[in-house]
Amino acid sequence: MTLNLDDVRQQIDAVDRELIEVVRKRLNLVQQVGVIKSKIGTPVYVPEREKQLLTKRRAEAEALNVSPDLIEDILRRLMRESYTAEHGVGFKCLNPSLKKIVIIGGRGGMGRIFTKFFQLSGYHVEVMGSKDWDKQETIFKDAGLVIVSVPIDRTESIIKKLDFLSEDCILADFTSTKSKPLAQMLETHKGPVVGLHPMFGPDISTLVKQLIIWCEGRFDEKCQWLYEQMQLWGASLLRIEASKHDEAMSYIQALRHFTTFSYGVFLSNENPDLKNIMDLSSPIYHMELMMVGRLFAQDPQLYADIILSNSHNLEIIEKYRDSITEAIKLIKNKERDVFIEEFKNAKSYFGEYAEMFIHESKNLLAKMHDAKSDE
Amino acid sequence: MTLNLDDVRQQIDAVDRELIEVVRKRLNLVQQVGVIKSKIGTPVYVPEREKQLLTKRRAEAEALNVSPDLIEDILRRLMRESYTAEHGVGFKCLNPSLKKIVIIGGRGGMGRIFTKFFQLSGYHVEVMGSKDWDKQETIFKDAGLVIVSVPIDRTESIIKKLDFLSEDCILADFTSTKSKPLAQMLETHKGPVVGLHPMFGPDISTLVKQLIIWCEGRFDEKCQWLYEQMQLWGASLLRIEASKHDEAMSYIQALRHFTTFSYGVFLSNENPDLKNIMDLSSPIYHMELMMVGRLFAQDPQLYADIILSNSHNLEIIEKYRDSITEAIKLIKNKERDVFIEEFKNAKSYFGEYAEMFIHESKNLLAKMHDAKSDE
Repeated sequence: MTLNLDDVRQQIDAVDRELIEVVRKRLNLVQQVGVIKSKIGTPVYVPEREKQLLTKRRAEAEALNVSPDLIEDILRRLMRESYTAEHGVGFKCLNPSLKKIVIIGGRGGMGRIFTKFFQLSGYHVEVMGSKDWDKQETIFKDAGLVIVSVPIDRTESIIKKLDFLSEDCILADFTSTKSKPLAQMLETHKGPVVGLHPMFGPDISTLVKQLIIWCEGRFDEKCQWLYEQMQLWGASLLRIEASKHDEAMSYIQALRHFTTFSYGVFLSNENPDLKNIMDLSSPIYHMELMMVGRLFAQDPQLYADIILSNSHNLEIIEKYRDSITEAIKLIKNKERDVFIEEFKNAKSYFGEYAEMFIHESKNLLAKMHDAKSDE
Repeated sequence: MTLNLDDVRQQIDAVDRELIEVVRKRLNLVQQVGVIKSKIGTPVYVPEREKQLLTKRRAEAEALNVSPDLIEDILRRLMRESYTAEHGVGFKCLNPSLKKIVIIGGRGGMGRIFTKFFQLSGYHVEVMGSKDWDKQETIFKDAGLVIVSVPIDRTESIIKKLDFLSEDCILADFTSTKSKPLAQMLETHKGPVVGLHPMFGPDISTLVKQLIIWCEGRFDEKCQWLYEQMQLWGASLLRIEASKHDEAMSYIQALRHFTTFSYGVFLSNENPDLKNIMDLSSPIYHMELMMVGRLFAQDPQLYADIILSNSHNLEIIEKYRDSITEAIKLIKNKERDVFIEEFKNAKSYFGEYAEMFIHESKNLLAKMHDAKSDE
């Protein structure tokens, strides 16, 4: 039987329509799951269920000689859509007696996300902007939870104003450093206090598997409902000491932002033809340029705030510059052997992560490549 | 009608099995496409066909109230699998009268990929290792294409040995700089010459949409079959001047590798608790750490070679260090306004790419997040 290309392509068209219908059916069923979950108050994301489901599907795929990785990728992509769809039906409210939540800076990126999720869970949320302080009495009246979600350089001064909150109100913040805001909250407010750091950007579509850092302040038992509520949304909560959090942040936030900033500024001053560079970028360079370039589509104030927020950052950045100067000497003197030795030292620092990163970046590069179109 | 969670989940299980079957059907059909294409010699990847198909599917999805992005993501992932499956049936041989292809360094990562694709296209490929030079007469006899695929610091000396090739043999190389190897090939060999730079790593599963840079040497018309053969595999070919290629490579390869290397070495010397840092990494920091850490799972020789390959790299790296020193002054003197101004200058350098990168990284982060499991 000789088939021509058009015949087979028509069959592919038909199969694809079947595929879309199957996806539609799955999304409908998942929506029912969402309705049931919101009634009984089960978390959106249950790691064991997801793991079980994927293990079963991988086996079923293999039995049909379909790549298990392919099926897992498709199902994980479908699950993202499902989690977002489940949001639509809302979440069970775990503290229905709470009268009001106030989010200071609630019109910012992070504030908007939490406003939405609290509202989807049936809470009454009031958003407080910088011009609303003359209405503070009305706004804070009956507040059972106040969250400070403002730029890092204004966090402490705003916390200082909050000395009038009632003693059963929880005071929390979302700042990306934790020691100072936490100390200030404990000083100003006598009731329950917790420092939070949502570890994601404002452009996420679901809180499932998103990490929220939590630094204990005071009367932690009064904050339990809040942690459980965030877990219902699918978030993972991790408790950590404020000082340990801040040490890590100097490296992964301040230093990394600084090097990305410097690299972009350097390129813009050197001014090589960006179109030429993009044309010549392999997937991995493309990804690296993407990581640099994306910074500059964002708010410069935010990055200035983070980098300038404490003097420890400057210390680390200066040490980094010294380390670069040392590395340049290697290149200048063509000390190939020392270069290789340092490379190997760094390899042992990264340990098992290095191989994990290779595997992970391979998958990610393949997905980036999937999305590429040549026109 | 009240359904419990288990009932709905059983229905989801059934729908997922349907999904796997639809995927199996699609892969079977695509394999037929591969057979037909390999007979008539059509490229594996036809951008217009892909674009048309996706546009139609997006519309069909929307009609069923399914997110078009979801369907596009699933189909693109399926297409990757399809391209790989199409390889299995082989490719049409566009130059059947060619007696032999010799790949010097053919056991390296890149050499292996091209050996495989030439063989899948019916060519006789001989691989030449560093210990095979005593057999050079037998190996190079009747060779119609010789490709030099060896480390950058040995490329020129190996090309110099190739002064005995017959005048109708094409001489090509895969080096990541182009000017010097190309000049050396033109000096040593009197026949057709072309400089190639495959812009991908050795871990790809398909050549579809992969970029191969091509710098004209001599008798380009004799090399046409080679370009067309690579296009049949799905690769995109881009012609560029060797000097323009090398200028871009200094920035996107040498400098970027250097900064990644320095950052990793710095972290390993500072030795902050990596587990702590990983735990506290938001998806974007995780991705940045991944980009750094993955370097160190690779061959240090390769990176030493690339960075030490020419003195222009050192020049750029030193300028970059100066630029960092300037940026540190800003931080030290808390010149927030200048920081923001430089940020904005860099933003305008990245121009439309900055927004494109944000969009792209958002999608990529979501896909990385899809793959995350909490256990």
